[in-house]
Amino acid sequence: QTTASKKMLRHVVLFKFKDSATPAQVKEVEEAFKALPSKIKEIKGLEWGTNNSPEGLSQGFTHVFFVTFDSEAGREVYLPHPDHKAFGKVLGPHLDKVLVVDYWTKE
Amino acid sequence: QTTASKKMLRHVVLFKFKDSATPAQVKEVEEAFKALPSKIKEIKGLEWGTNNSPEGLSQGFTHVFFVTFDSEAGREVYLPHPDHKAFGKVLGPHLDKVLVVDYWTKE
Repeated sequence: QTTASKKMLRHVVLFKFKDSATPAQVKEVEEAFKALPSKIKEIKGLEWGTNNSPEGLSQGFTHVFFVTFDSEAGREVYLPHPDHKAFGKVLGPHLDKVLVVDYWTKE
Repeated sequence: QTTASKKMLRHVVLFKFKDSATPAQVKEVEEAFKALPSKIKEIKGLEWGTNNSPEGLSQGFTHVFFVTFDSEAGREVYLPHPDHKAFGKVLGPHLDKVLVVDYWTKE
């Protein structure tokens, strides 16, 4: 199975890190994001990876975090959640830019 | 199940349409993209939707098409595939900007 069989709310987050961010700092951000599902029960799924597109259309974004919620209420809990805010403090100093799009799944 | 249990290659495509694009033209692009899995067998999954993020970080992108491959070879067939190129001709006149990032899934 490659996608959800039930309608889900996807939260797609792209990061580009500052040139000054070290591999260890990037790794710290990755680990901090990966820890969020264990802290915020409204996160129903997390998948992530680093860009390897050969098309040259990534606008410098290197990281994709693909979060799943099952309701907009879940997202409303997540966005201002203290553990999400704490993640933002880990991320902030190393972030060049971020892009976020959310969508309800259609097939 | 909200994400793949097996490692998959995700191809995340964001579109922003021109202001001049009519709802019917946008719909035509959506339908053309949705038809691709029936034409290109290397596409192992397609999910899509329209942005509803409340965060204001979408940079104007309104559409997400989330394509799954199971190999980089599959992507190599897809990118120059005649049916993909034909889709590009439907899309092109109405496209303001596009962003593409691909990643191998990690959890």
